[in-house]
Amino acid sequence: MSLLDKFNQKDIRALSKIISAIEDNQIGVQKILGELYPKAGSAVRIGITGPPGAGKSTLVNGLAHLFLKHGKKVGVLAVDPTSPFTGGALLGDRVRMHEFPTTGEIYFRSMATRGARGGLSAATDNAAVAVGAFGYDIVLIETVGVGQIEIDIIDTCDVVVVVLVPESGDSIQTMKAGLMEIGDIFVVNKADRPGSDKMVAELRYGIGNWKHTNKSWPAPVIATEATHDKNVDKLFEVIGQFVEHLKTSGRFEAHRREQISKKVLSVLQARFKREFLDHVDADTRLEAVVDDIMSGKSNPYLAGEELYKKFEKQKTLRVQT
Amino acid sequence: MSLLDKFNQKDIRALSKIISAIEDNQIGVQKILGELYPKAGSAVRIGITGPPGAGKSTLVNGLAHLFLKHGKKVGVLAVDPTSPFTGGALLGDRVRMHEFPTTGEIYFRSMATRGARGGLSAATDNAAVAVGAFGYDIVLIETVGVGQIEIDIIDTCDVVVVVLVPESGDSIQTMKAGLMEIGDIFVVNKADRPGSDKMVAELRYGIGNWKHTNKSWPAPVIATEATHDKNVDKLFEVIGQFVEHLKTSGRFEAHRREQISKKVLSVLQARFKREFLDHVDADTRLEAVVDDIMSGKSNPYLAGEELYKKFEKQKTLRVQT
Repeated sequence: MSLLDKFNQKDIRALSKIISAIEDNQIGVQKILGELYPKAGSAVRIGITGPPGAGKSTLVNGLAHLFLKHGKKVGVLAVDPTSPFTGGALLGDRVRMHEFPTTGEIYFRSMATRGARGGLSAATDNAAVAVGAFGYDIVLIETVGVGQIEIDIIDTCDVVVVVLVPESGDSIQTMKAGLMEIGDIFVVNKADRPGSDKMVAELRYGIGNWKHTNKSWPAPVIATEATHDKNVDKLFEVIGQFVEHLKTSGRFEAHRREQISKKVLSVLQARFKREFLDHVDADTRLEAVVDDIMSGKSNPYLAGEELYKKFEKQKTLRVQT
Repeated sequence: MSLLDKFNQKDIRALSKIISAIEDNQIGVQKILGELYPKAGSAVRIGITGPPGAGKSTLVNGLAHLFLKHGKKVGVLAVDPTSPFTGGALLGDRVRMHEFPTTGEIYFRSMATRGARGGLSAATDNAAVAVGAFGYDIVLIETVGVGQIEIDIIDTCDVVVVVLVPESGDSIQTMKAGLMEIGDIFVVNKADRPGSDKMVAELRYGIGNWKHTNKSWPAPVIATEATHDKNVDKLFEVIGQFVEHLKTSGRFEAHRREQISKKVLSVLQARFKREFLDHVDADTRLEAVVDDIMSGKSNPYLAGEELYKKFEKQKTLRVQT
């Protein structure tokens, strides 16, 4: 029985294997994704982002169980940018798997680059397709919101929840700055800490005044204490209202169209790279090119251009013969 | 007089304009970079990374002035991942430009995506080429070390200095994890804070035991107080020793070769994307493709493949006629 057959028969291990194949960018994975894609459309993607230590995991756990209580199946993808170096994601998995009994109602998976640099946002996007196609109604994507990759991932979500904490310290202040414009909903978690009320007030004031504030949905600010399960239900409710708002205002569809267009372009570029590396004897050729550049006979910009032309010419010959 | 002529006549505004052109990915910029590349080879790139608030800027300023004192011209590129949203880099510029009198000996520039998502690491790499070609002996690249993009940038440096602070707080702990494996030299800055000695000891212990520790260069740990100019000279000295080590061990050249090979591949991919977007009536075609995907007639993986084939076929026809 093929992996896809097993997947269609709701074998959870097939889902995990497909996600691993996505991470490793295995041959044939695009074809599988093509099959899965039409089934993934109705799953709502919710991005949860914020600085490390803001309590995102606890909040995600709380939300997942609320969705479950309301009859929705939930898949969680946790993106850990530190993992290429430390295997941090693996440890996280072990700790967190424990919190989610394998009822099949909640699926948990952490995503890591594992050396395949630059491909994490595409891999997460594809994994979300697989999770949605498997039948999960909600895909919660948790990520540390700082770098570009994390922002790219968040870009593919229907709903973006930015989680902050009333922590002083310049680290947090700096990170906050980068998160302000991407949130549909803001959470001030660990609201029992000093400075929480002030932070909520400041955020609300800011949102009221920002140029980029969406007038038909001024992002709400919710104070939560995820570890004490306080106000997580409120957040859950507001997420529901936002999804409703997206659908009635036409933004849901517009955003999906934009996502699709980006996705097609990224598939196209990956396709080109694969073909180049497959058909041109890239390694040998590259070695010679590097020699020329090291000795000053060429430069990477010229060499890239020349390799491109050679590659295209060879292909034309292949097509003609 | 062309921009390149002005650049060659050491007009600092020409350098800044070229870096802006790089950021905006303007037409013709690759050609300019090709001209500049051979002149950039001898500049040493030093990456300074660490969590926000670790005092990287003060350390960079201190190092820049020490290099200057030793007769080296220094260019500083400060990469600010939060800036696409807030224009944070601009504010930073204003504050920091002030610290560097425009003697022409120290050049300061902050790099921001400004909407051009995904291109920041390539842009920074190209900007470093321009700064090196202008005649700066040292390019200090300062970046917040968390996301993938920042790590990609650090990857292109000859020397990587990881700056940490004896701060508790889970935020910092989490970020530290991602930085451990990339450092050639570690700095515990703000060493007057409690916990500094312990942190230095822990780092040294860790470095001695890590599997990935380079036996011929076990990364040194230096405690500094950049704001009081304490031990920055020690760091300066160790950087010099490391560069010496790189050159005598052959690692300098090996790393440069690897960088060049990556660079050629990235130029090649960018070239393909540009040609695709130029020659195919991408927008119209993409709109129709998105319609098909929305209605379930196609999917992004299939559509990307089909577009690629159409694009290649058209090109073959163009070449033949």
